[in-house]
Amino acid sequence: MVLRYPNGKTYQPMPQKKIRNNKNSNIIFGNRGMSLEEEINQSNQYYLQQGIAVIHKKPIPIQIVQVDYPQRSAAVIKEAYFKQASTTDYNGVYRGYYLDFEAKETHNKASFPLSNFHEHQIAHMKACVVQKGICFTLIKFTATQEVFLLPASILFDYWDNQEKGRKSIPKKTIVNDGFQIKYHVTPLIPYLKSIDKVIENLCNA
Amino acid sequence: MVLRYPNGKTYQPMPQKKIRNNKNSNIIFGNRGMSLEEEINQSNQYYLQQGIAVIHKKPIPIQIVQVDYPQRSAAVIKEAYFKQASTTDYNGVYRGYYLDFEAKETHNKASFPLSNFHEHQIAHMKACVVQKGICFTLIKFTATQEVFLLPASILFDYWDNQEKGRKSIPKKTIVNDGFQIKYHVTPLIPYLKSIDKVIENLCNA
Repeated sequence: MVLRYPNGKTYQPMPQKKIRNNKNSNIIFGNRGMSLEEEINQSNQYYLQQGIAVIHKKPIPIQIVQVDYPQRSAAVIKEAYFKQASTTDYNGVYRGYYLDFEAKETHNKASFPLSNFHEHQIAHMKACVVQKGICFTLIKFTATQEVFLLPASILFDYWDNQEKGRKSIPKKTIVNDGFQIKYHVTPLIPYLKSIDKVIENLCNA
Repeated sequence: MVLRYPNGKTYQPMPQKKIRNNKNSNIIFGNRGMSLEEEINQSNQYYLQQGIAVIHKKPIPIQIVQVDYPQRSAAVIKEAYFKQASTTDYNGVYRGYYLDFEAKETHNKASFPLSNFHEHQIAHMKACVVQKGICFTLIKFTATQEVFLLPASILFDYWDNQEKGRKSIPKKTIVNDGFQIKYHVTPLIPYLKSIDKVIENLCNA
């Protein structure tokens, strides 16, 4: 049966948007419907605008194969591939200190799996620590919407012992040895407050 | 007239490769046929391997529009565009200091044009200096193959006065107030030696 509008035109149902096989399809949306990455980006923007710190997420590394240059319009990348990052996602400067970190979400409730990291990310953070950079991970437990800052030294301990021991960091360790970051308004994730404590400990050490 | 090979097949001349309108087509190849960027990347790799510093070039920021996921092979980016970077090209950590810099080549012989910079790059460097980061530019005069490290403070002076004054930094200023970096073998551009002097000056200030 053909349906028609009052003006005689036939009604055609809108085609359903095909859902693409998207890498982010299994993101769990946390606080305010945002991913941890979005929450951190928003917090960094606040820190930047307020002159508190300069911290940026690095662009995704891409291997570009083919670029078209249509006349009078912007260059279009027609073929490119994702490359594995050789560093962590975020870095920047705060109070004279170099900060370097990864942001990770987990569905797990009792522990944080080490499989969230690649060897080269750990190697990068270790190299930064040698240069007196402050390295850490922001971990979000999506089930409880809790965010923690875990100093890299604790991650290194578990990473280096995973062959003979467990393949994850117990949440208990993260609670005890990390810093919980309570959601706030400006910024959403005030993680630099925890960094102030890390710096204080550095200065007293 | 048709030319034939001894086996009877007709000879067809190889089609000339069409030279694409490539953005990098006017690169002047400097020392060892490398661009300044390649020279710096190689130097940074040496610094990393030797445990001297951790400094990386940031990936080019890309706006990805369409990605295909062919079965059993890597995801292919089929449509993407270049975005303007909101920061400088290089950053990292050295001896506890945050380093942040741009690398620029110029064909000019007597001065370095300020048009090589964007407002947002200057704003980014100014914000990093507020956080006690060390910011600078590596400038290569391609005609003479000379490389200089110019502290950001001098760039800021010229940038902030360009409305009423000149639109370039005289080479004389760069020679007097910057640090010439002589090509070496390991690393090719030993620019951290000049940073040691910058740090010394900071500590004595």
